[in-house]
Amino acid sequence: TSFHFGDRPPHSLDSNTYVRIVPFMARPSLRNALLDAGLRVLWKTGYAGAGVRDIVADAGARPGSFTNHFASKEAFAEEVLERYFDHLRGLIAVALAERGLSPAGRLRRYLDVITDKAAARGFEQGCLIGDMSLETTAHSERLRLRLAAIYAEWRELFAGCIAEGQATGEISRDFTGDELADFLISGWQGALLRMKVVRSREPLERFKAIVFATVFGKPT
Amino acid sequence: TSFHFGDRPPHSLDSNTYVRIVPFMARPSLRNALLDAGLRVLWKTGYAGAGVRDIVADAGARPGSFTNHFASKEAFAEEVLERYFDHLRGLIAVALAERGLSPAGRLRRYLDVITDKAAARGFEQGCLIGDMSLETTAHSERLRLRLAAIYAEWRELFAGCIAEGQATGEISRDFTGDELADFLISGWQGALLRMKVVRSREPLERFKAIVFATVFGKPT
Repeated sequence: TSFHFGDRPPHSLDSNTYVRIVPFMARPSLRNALLDAGLRVLWKTGYAGAGVRDIVADAGARPGSFTNHFASKEAFAEEVLERYFDHLRGLIAVALAERGLSPAGRLRRYLDVITDKAAARGFEQGCLIGDMSLETTAHSERLRLRLAAIYAEWRELFAGCIAEGQATGEISRDFTGDELADFLISGWQGALLRMKVVRSREPLERFKAIVFATVFGKPT
Repeated sequence: TSFHFGDRPPHSLDSNTYVRIVPFMARPSLRNALLDAGLRVLWKTGYAGAGVRDIVADAGARPGSFTNHFASKEAFAEEVLERYFDHLRGLIAVALAERGLSPAGRLRRYLDVITDKAAARGFEQGCLIGDMSLETTAHSERLRLRLAAIYAEWRELFAGCIAEGQATGEISRDFTGDELADFLISGWQGALLRMKVVRSREPLERFKAIVFATVFGKPT
């Protein structure tokens, strides 16, 4: 996959660095390898379907290594989700940066970027956040709360752009920026869900065509 | 749960009914019990998370009984999906019957009915069709095609109502009835997805408020 996550910020070293330096250097790379494998496996197989064994095998790690780094599959999935959203944050920041487009145009640019990424995966994989929202929230309070926090931050990122469009009159003020942001995020998740069934770009293009001609178009 | 499915239409009896009557009477009821249990378990636990063992236990059946009636978990899930959609068909037919409401009002009545049902389940369970769309389509071509057929029929039911609203001028003709129906179904799936995360009616009410004030409201 095209995903690449940077290393985590370095931990502070204690005074006796010599005896600590080897485990310190070794651990983050295996930890990251497991998390990268976790993204691939969870996104493809789902939470219940992904065994710790599969994740360890995908990372090319020893069977016992998972429990050295993660307290549970739930805690692990929470970190995978956070890293996935961290990647989305970057895509959102780039798409919503002005660069000659109006606020509605920038929101559309973000959805176009995701459409291209979905096409590169044959429309078989949608959004890990959406997948986990349907599959895990009834069983894991920890993942449910993490997902709620992710959506809250996502809403804020979109709402800022929407507020700009409302200030210039491009976007209607009949609803608040928060409401419209939540509507856009949820509707997009629904379009990605449908995309996985028909395995084509059509649900994504239809969503964009309708939403930018109505909810985010020509205010009265 | 409040779901109740009627029995399947009776099979035709062969000439020698006497020796066949006992297995014929016994089989459909156990079969139905397994399918009812399958709905409960699949809807709560998801496809990968639901073991055949759990389904058989929920039905109060003997461990070997599942394989007597179903060739595979996949074939079983397909029948559960079909029965679930059969129930939705009934809810759609009742909600979209005129009874003094305009076409857009009838579409909203359907979403209100589903909102009430979701509330009765503490907003923990959304739509089995949406759940299966995200979880199974990458792994089961059989379930993917069944889901595609379900959405196609669902679209047709909504599109008929939308076309009525377009004929009277209540609903905009900027998009076809099929396009608007697909948009409504997908957007609603997205709202149900978000509902499971925040575990409240808010995403459902927001979706209805925005969509019936914009896409399905006051055409230009």
